[in-house]
Amino acid sequence: MILGSIEAGGTKFVCAIGNENYQVKDQVTIPTTKPAETLQKVADYFKDAGVEAIGIASFGPIEVRKTAPNYGYITDTPKAGWSNTDFVGFLKKTVDVPMYFTTDVNGSAFGEYVMAQLANEDVDSLVYYTIGTGVGGGAINNSKLVGSAGHPEMGHVRVKRHPDDLDFAGICPFHQDCLEGLVSGPTFEARMNKKGQEVPLSDPVWDIMSYYVAQAALQVTLILRPDKIVFGGGVTSADFLQKVRRDFAELLNGYVHVPPLDQYITLPEISNNGSATVGDFALAKRMLRE
Amino acid sequence: MILGSIEAGGTKFVCAIGNENYQVKDQVTIPTTKPAETLQKVADYFKDAGVEAIGIASFGPIEVRKTAPNYGYITDTPKAGWSNTDFVGFLKKTVDVPMYFTTDVNGSAFGEYVMAQLANEDVDSLVYYTIGTGVGGGAINNSKLVGSAGHPEMGHVRVKRHPDDLDFAGICPFHQDCLEGLVSGPTFEARMNKKGQEVPLSDPVWDIMSYYVAQAALQVTLILRPDKIVFGGGVTSADFLQKVRRDFAELLNGYVHVPPLDQYITLPEISNNGSATVGDFALAKRMLRE
Repeated sequence: MILGSIEAGGTKFVCAIGNENYQVKDQVTIPTTKPAETLQKVADYFKDAGVEAIGIASFGPIEVRKTAPNYGYITDTPKAGWSNTDFVGFLKKTVDVPMYFTTDVNGSAFGEYVMAQLANEDVDSLVYYTIGTGVGGGAINNSKLVGSAGHPEMGHVRVKRHPDDLDFAGICPFHQDCLEGLVSGPTFEARMNKKGQEVPLSDPVWDIMSYYVAQAALQVTLILRPDKIVFGGGVTSADFLQKVRRDFAELLNGYVHVPPLDQYITLPEISNNGSATVGDFALAKRMLRE
Repeated sequence: MILGSIEAGGTKFVCAIGNENYQVKDQVTIPTTKPAETLQKVADYFKDAGVEAIGIASFGPIEVRKTAPNYGYITDTPKAGWSNTDFVGFLKKTVDVPMYFTTDVNGSAFGEYVMAQLANEDVDSLVYYTIGTGVGGGAINNSKLVGSAGHPEMGHVRVKRHPDDLDFAGICPFHQDCLEGLVSGPTFEARMNKKGQEVPLSDPVWDIMSYYVAQAALQVTLILRPDKIVFGGGVTSADFLQKVRRDFAELLNGYVHVPPLDQYITLPEISNNGSATVGDFALAKRMLRE
């Protein structure tokens, strides 16, 4: 099989051509400028490549319901110029192959799920969170992406506030102190007037962060009972996840069985943000098989 | 088809015989005493009834993973005498038919899902919460029950505390101020030394309750994107759900599209706690069809 992957981000589109074993044969990076310009370059890249299907993991919000009149669109995004863009429709004018259209985090979730399956891990369901400029999450349940009325927006749940953080209002323009408003990368500037990279892990702010992230892990544990929770994104690190595991164990208090925490709450298996590419290939492959 | 339903509760077992159209042909109530005594009465009821399959919606926690050595057991329940009870194995000695074993709330969730489908509602996924002596939830995603590492325990998530409720410690013996510790029926006694039925809806405590319940609805909205959220249990009422819808709308702040709130956040379609019976019949029927 020849399969395509599009990771559509706010600053760049990473397009790749690969095979059913998730091997990348060619890859190109296209800067995110205006929709027509960017998408035409993407379409041209795939035009004569012989791809049989393409998986697309896009920034959002996007319309993923096949029955919606604007299926395949980026909808009302804060990214200037990109609201109401017919992503899939535009590409199909040049490359008319089956396309699986989903969010960036769903693509990453599916990639991590596929890798766990290849490694013979006992993983039938998985949650992938990214904690970076924003916070988002995607989930697989019994091999299917979760979400019926639309795609998840796991970053905007509310959490119990940390007693040492009650004065911080949060920075989400929609919800102030939702999860994203409390733990996304820019909260470091808002709380401390520093970049996150400059704040050592010994700083107590990381314990506040891990308390909130552990509550997110607790929510999906108790709502979805997944086999694995993966945390990606620039704020995450191996040392930070140690704190998250500690706080998660304390919050769960042994209430339900979970796998050993170093296997349950993990960094991505696929390095260099490659999860979505594998996920895109796998979703494209699945389209051809169904 | 002749199908069986067992709703196993802490005070009584409701057993029913029905058909593939979810019509109850016969029903019996058996008090919950000791496991062997209760389960033998249940087995005797079904012994010569000719049922082809049985759906079981049980109090928990229970083991629902087919690969687990103690699949079909009630595990470490607080219900005296019932820990480590081989529920399915015991029944199969007398009635050896296929049995679908799940939680009470999963059974109710499936029943409400089936009713929505019969009513031609556009419902592919649904969450059912009960708010009563305890708080629990079950979910359907793309026609399948959610939960891979076990069944959900949605009552034990954490929520942002209401500013007028910060002095209340919560009553969950495992987590203090988790959702169940803040909104289950016995919290009325703990907060006000009154029974919930004695507290009029004009009392501000109901606004505290609805703030927490709305956060639960928000969590599953943003994590699962279901088409419908049903609230059952003794604490719930039509008037209380009006408050929940109000607080939910404020918390969501238009961030994702949801159906009209009076269709999205609802009481059960099936009255008199009958959701689980329909769900049991439907799960039994599905077992025979698959």
